[in-house]
Amino acid sequence: MAKMKAAIFVEKNRIVLDEKPIPEVGPLDALIRITTTTLCGTDVHILRGEYPVAKGLTIGHEPVGVIEKLGSQVQGFVEGQRVIAGAITPSGHSFACLCGCGAQDGPDTRHGFRAAGGWKFGNSIDGSQAEYLLVPDATANLCAIPDHLSDEQVLMCPDIMSTGFSGAERGEVQIGDTVVVFALGPIGLCAVAGARLKGATTIIGVDTVAARIEVAHKLGATHVVDFNKGDVVQQIMRLTDGRGVDVAIEALGTQSTFESALRVLRPGGTLSSLGVYSSDLRLPLDAFAAGLGDYRIVSTLCPGGKERMRRLMEVVGSGQVDLKPLVTHHFKLDDIEAAYELFAHQRDGVMKVAITP
Amino acid sequence: MAKMKAAIFVEKNRIVLDEKPIPEVGPLDALIRITTTTLCGTDVHILRGEYPVAKGLTIGHEPVGVIEKLGSQVQGFVEGQRVIAGAITPSGHSFACLCGCGAQDGPDTRHGFRAAGGWKFGNSIDGSQAEYLLVPDATANLCAIPDHLSDEQVLMCPDIMSTGFSGAERGEVQIGDTVVVFALGPIGLCAVAGARLKGATTIIGVDTVAARIEVAHKLGATHVVDFNKGDVVQQIMRLTDGRGVDVAIEALGTQSTFESALRVLRPGGTLSSLGVYSSDLRLPLDAFAAGLGDYRIVSTLCPGGKERMRRLMEVVGSGQVDLKPLVTHHFKLDDIEAAYELFAHQRDGVMKVAITP
Amino acid sequence: MAKMKAAIFVEKNRIVLDEKPIPEVGPLDALIRITTTTLCGTDVHILRGEYPVAKGLTIGHEPVGVIEKLGSQVQGFVEGQRVIAGAITPSGHSFACLCGCGAQDGPDTRHGFRAAGGWKFGNSIDGSQAEYLLVPDATANLCAIPDHLSDEQVLMCPDIMSTGFSGAERGEVQIGDTVVVFALGPIGLCAVAGARLKGATTIIGVDTVAARIEVAHKLGATHVVDFNKGDVVQQIMRLTDGRGVDVAIEALGTQSTFESALRVLRPGGTLSSLGVYSSDLRLPLDAFAAGLGDYRIVSTLCPGGKERMRRLMEVVGSGQVDLKPLVTHHFKLDDIEAAYELFAHQRDGVMKVAITP
Amino acid sequence: MAKMKAAIFVEKNRIVLDEKPIPEVGPLDALIRITTTTLCGTDVHILRGEYPVAKGLTIGHEPVGVIEKLGSQVQGFVEGQRVIAGAITPSGHSFACLCGCGAQDGPDTRHGFRAAGGWKFGNSIDGSQAEYLLVPDATANLCAIPDHLSDEQVLMCPDIMSTGFSGAERGEVQIGDTVVVFALGPIGLCAVAGARLKGATTIIGVDTVAARIEVAHKLGATHVVDFNKGDVVQQIMRLTDGRGVDVAIEALGTQSTFESALRVLRPGGTLSSLGVYSSDLRLPLDAFAAGLGDYRIVSTLCPGGKERMRRLMEVVGSGQVDLKPLVTHHFKLDDIEAAYELFAHQRDGVMKVAITP
Repeated sequence: MAKMKAAIFVEKNRIVLDEKPIPEVGPLDALIRITTTTLCGTDVHILRGEYPVAKGLTIGHEPVGVIEKLGSQVQGFVEGQRVIAGAITPSGHSFACLCGCGAQDGPDTRHGFRAAGGWKFGNSIDGSQAEYLLVPDATANLCAIPDHLSDEQVLMCPDIMSTGFSGAERGEVQIGDTVVVFALGPIGLCAVAGARLKGATTIIGVDTVAARIEVAHKLGATHVVDFNKGDVVQQIMRLTDGRGVDVAIEALGTQSTFESALRVLRPGGTLSSLGVYSSDLRLPLDAFAAGLGDYRIVSTLCPGGKERMRRLMEVVGSGQVDLKPLVTHHFKLDDIEAAYELFAHQRDGVMKVAITP
Repeated sequence: MAKMKAAIFVEKNRIVLDEKPIPEVGPLDALIRITTTTLCGTDVHILRGEYPVAKGLTIGHEPVGVIEKLGSQVQGFVEGQRVIAGAITPSGHSFACLCGCGAQDGPDTRHGFRAAGGWKFGNSIDGSQAEYLLVPDATANLCAIPDHLSDEQVLMCPDIMSTGFSGAERGEVQIGDTVVVFALGPIGLCAVAGARLKGATTIIGVDTVAARIEVAHKLGATHVVDFNKGDVVQQIMRLTDGRGVDVAIEALGTQSTFESALRVLRPGGTLSSLGVYSSDLRLPLDAFAAGLGDYRIVSTLCPGGKERMRRLMEVVGSGQVDLKPLVTHHFKLDDIEAAYELFAHQRDGVMKVAITP
Repeated sequence: MAKMKAAIFVEKNRIVLDEKPIPEVGPLDALIRITTTTLCGTDVHILRGEYPVAKGLTIGHEPVGVIEKLGSQVQGFVEGQRVIAGAITPSGHSFACLCGCGAQDGPDTRHGFRAAGGWKFGNSIDGSQAEYLLVPDATANLCAIPDHLSDEQVLMCPDIMSTGFSGAERGEVQIGDTVVVFALGPIGLCAVAGARLKGATTIIGVDTVAARIEVAHKLGATHVVDFNKGDVVQQIMRLTDGRGVDVAIEALGTQSTFESALRVLRPGGTLSSLGVYSSDLRLPLDAFAAGLGDYRIVSTLCPGGKERMRRLMEVVGSGQVDLKPLVTHHFKLDDIEAAYELFAHQRDGVMKVAITP
Repeated sequence: MAKMKAAIFVEKNRIVLDEKPIPEVGPLDALIRITTTTLCGTDVHILRGEYPVAKGLTIGHEPVGVIEKLGSQVQGFVEGQRVIAGAITPSGHSFACLCGCGAQDGPDTRHGFRAAGGWKFGNSIDGSQAEYLLVPDATANLCAIPDHLSDEQVLMCPDIMSTGFSGAERGEVQIGDTVVVFALGPIGLCAVAGARLKGATTIIGVDTVAARIEVAHKLGATHVVDFNKGDVVQQIMRLTDGRGVDVAIEALGTQSTFESALRVLRPGGTLSSLGVYSSDLRLPLDAFAAGLGDYRIVSTLCPGGKERMRRLMEVVGSGQVDLKPLVTHHFKLDDIEAAYELFAHQRDGVMKVAITP
């Protein structure tokens, strides 16, 4: 049986490059030869044991590659095509998918709903940090890359662009809105770009790292609030003349950012939560206006599926959003352990790394 | 200056019937002679000092009456007409109103948004537990009562029917949904009726009081879960074959009900919060699926304005929802202190009381 | 090769019962042994050559049956289960499906969108008026029938209930709305029931046949307008005190009903079109308010897929909507030509017929 | 009684500058001294007698000015403030306003809905092509101009920007959509900008005039189709690889553009109509997919009110949309007849004119 290299979760604080068999291709699957992939903050949570996965699992959920082999029932693609697949791979045929909630795709029985069932790569099945990747329900999940786009140009589509944009989309940003984005990591930066794409006119980024702030301005932030330079809530209320914001996007996953996001909402505003949390959250009574504020809190898992990927690649192709500045480092798959080392410690101004087998 | 009787907040644990001048009528106002009004759970919060209002304020926000005098600029009404006004009285001309959020109506400057600004009666201005009530922005807030409806039939429209229904409306209940309503007080019972009106097919009420449960079944509840007969979350998950509910409506205002509502949501489900809380809320990490569950949490303040009142009276007139069983007791305004005594202690199976001057 | 009986389109005005091979089952398919099916108005259009289908095609798109054989890749079902499938069978994996428009499901390439691609049974593939039916993309389209529901109780779910309800759903009927339904055939009657389920309080049916009007009242119509007793538009405007309706549902497919539906809209109202038209439509300048009326016109093809079927069977099971009075006649499959004869001529008060092999 | 100059409709083909009394200010009104206004295509319809208004009416609905005098009940403004008001002036207190449809504002009785009731200036009351303008319901309709914006920068907000943007908003343009705009007059150009603001990635303008096409590209058009260079529908289908468009915006008001807009929709797409039509419209059977296409047709009247104006000025202030190139000519109010002459004949590349008293 042919072998491939893959980044495998061994135990807490150990992800190593090892060999695994190249997967068998079932009727609904496609085997992708990975040409570029990347690391995600969630992978670091996995590395640190904060988000549990099975030992021996291949990590990674951001694939760019070439179709090596198609299952007998896959339609609409040919071997040799350049493709991406989303981090989340809805089956298309679950009850969740058929009520428009593909990210929450679960087992196919009525009783099987459970949260985040659509997130499979590097979570419930082997992921993309490998030479080959098996894509389930490939007809629903592969999307051909337009010829004029490079691997690196579409590398952010499977996860951070889809997640970040969804912060603005589920927040229902309107033309003329004021939006704040808490934390300008890769997801937050994409949320800034998404808010801009949806017509927000005042976009406030919250961070303290100069390089991130610079990218945020390029992607559409009109103001930046530095949490080291005074109370964040007060700064934002001042910037909005005491009115508060229409939509607050949480892109870090902490009590502090979540609570501040709630506190700066105008009555009737929306807190759009993208963060992956690692502890309970608290809604202070006054911040929640005792339940009388007409607030909306929405949490969103990265939307996937080929139609989503097609649209995101359209955005890239249109030139409206340029995420190339986010890819700060390049590694070979052979050096992925070094990539994790750099990325997990946020050294050297790293935002995203491109990994090529 | 002519005097009238009014139920006045004197200090914590003292609401008394006293005399006050009958209000002057400004150009935008209408003076209503109250023919029927009622007490609300929120009034009990005020009585107990849990929700602060100014000393000397007339309490009450559920008016049914007759137009005694119209301001010079009020259009579309005549003196002598039978009318109601909503508990919340949007001005119609604030920034909040003009972006569709009338309950959050505030001062008319851009800087003046603040939560719950549309709730004026018995909160920021004198309320309806009196012989006369001054209705601000009367053109936007009065609504004529159809001749064939009695005072008591429309007495629930200004607040609990509007609030309860909004739980289902903001929860975006769909045909075929499973909905749970936590606590079957007057608001919760109206939420049951609202869920039924919106097409829910499985409606689970949570309570333990037999009389309330009986009314819940009449209003559309298909199942009831008694929190004294085992773990509520487990009971609901069993009733839904482990699937969870599409929409959970919180109608009490406690950590326990809020948290249970979150725990029984299907992935992608909505927690629709109606309760008035009196302490911080906690979102347990697992119940919130670490932010990955595509959940929506919406809080809603009672929708007001004449179009809302018109529609609610249409519902009453259509015979689809009969709330008469909720009015369990009758008092004269002169006996309102006794009514508070009964209602605050939930004696004698009281649900709502009708107060007539 | 085993044979089965099937109702086949031979040529204009000839649908005959003939023999065909029982279909082969592919990996994604399920073979259903039909236990009950029915005829639809659209089948009569096909019979008359008004809606073109291929010669030799088996007609019918409303299947109730038992799983005879499952394809190797079908998940979540077992042979012997009682099931239905929707008239429309979205693949779940097309671009159209993945942007929430499964009824418009098309080929799996980006270039392949075309209208009504999700309608396959008795249109682009063999249909349900036969002893056996091959269901494509069975994981997405089969739905188990709850034990306590009979075939006849769920016979309306695949098409007319789904279509009729969608008239109210896509019309976005709100609590307290006034709705008119033009023509009280089976679809129109289900639209009445759907409007009621969504919270409409005034529901006006337009027809002239006593038996239909009687059923309409049972399903929720509050008023009926007889087009033989005066101008329909004037009658409706009078019933609504000159206000017009919030939502007008067109359920016949003619210029006359479409135009009247437009004329009775309140400014800002919605015309929800369910009819299958056979000629161009005209929007009179005044009826369309020269484009200034904030009107919405939506046309909807029957929603399908297993989640839809599950929800509709929940409605039946809840007892909120009883469509049994619509099944006026019963035939054996062997007598289907006689059933067509009766149904096409609307003899003997026929509404829907149940066909059993 | 003090007099002012005003452009008055005398009879078909005659709008003249004449004298009129400066209006009296009622309690809810504000008197604005006009500093800049403009002409609209609708004014030309009025001039030509195609849209009927009363003889003697002052024309114009696009006011920029300074508050000269405030009615006693107007809140939130001071005399001397620079303000705009929308072309449409919702009362804020009508049934239509209170169900979110302010452009369809009508008399305050339940029976009084009629289309376009919110359009008052230069339609049912005196308009803005004058030295002074009386603004009704001023609290709801005035909006202060930020100091850093000039009159000319906000001159497009009251009508064409609000109307054009609403084409994209009511069309529910999503990130990654393909949008076509039929006719690149001022409204169409603003629709292009609106589609861009809402996240469309392919925006096709249809026109033939070089100067308009140039501006369209600046405002976000990615492609232009010239109707003189072949069949428009075929050109658009080719540009979209046969897929069709998600949203087609009609911005001219003719059968030809309306029909083409329908023909290029993808199944499930939306036709967003902004044009003011002058004859019946036809929906060809095939273009309407016989009612099976899941199409949506929405018509929209310019949204008004101070919150809308505030948001549009935010867009201008953000620099995201620069409409200055649309103002091609300047006239004094004294020369307004010459302005009409130029504008009505579309001479000299005119797009919009600025008129200053």
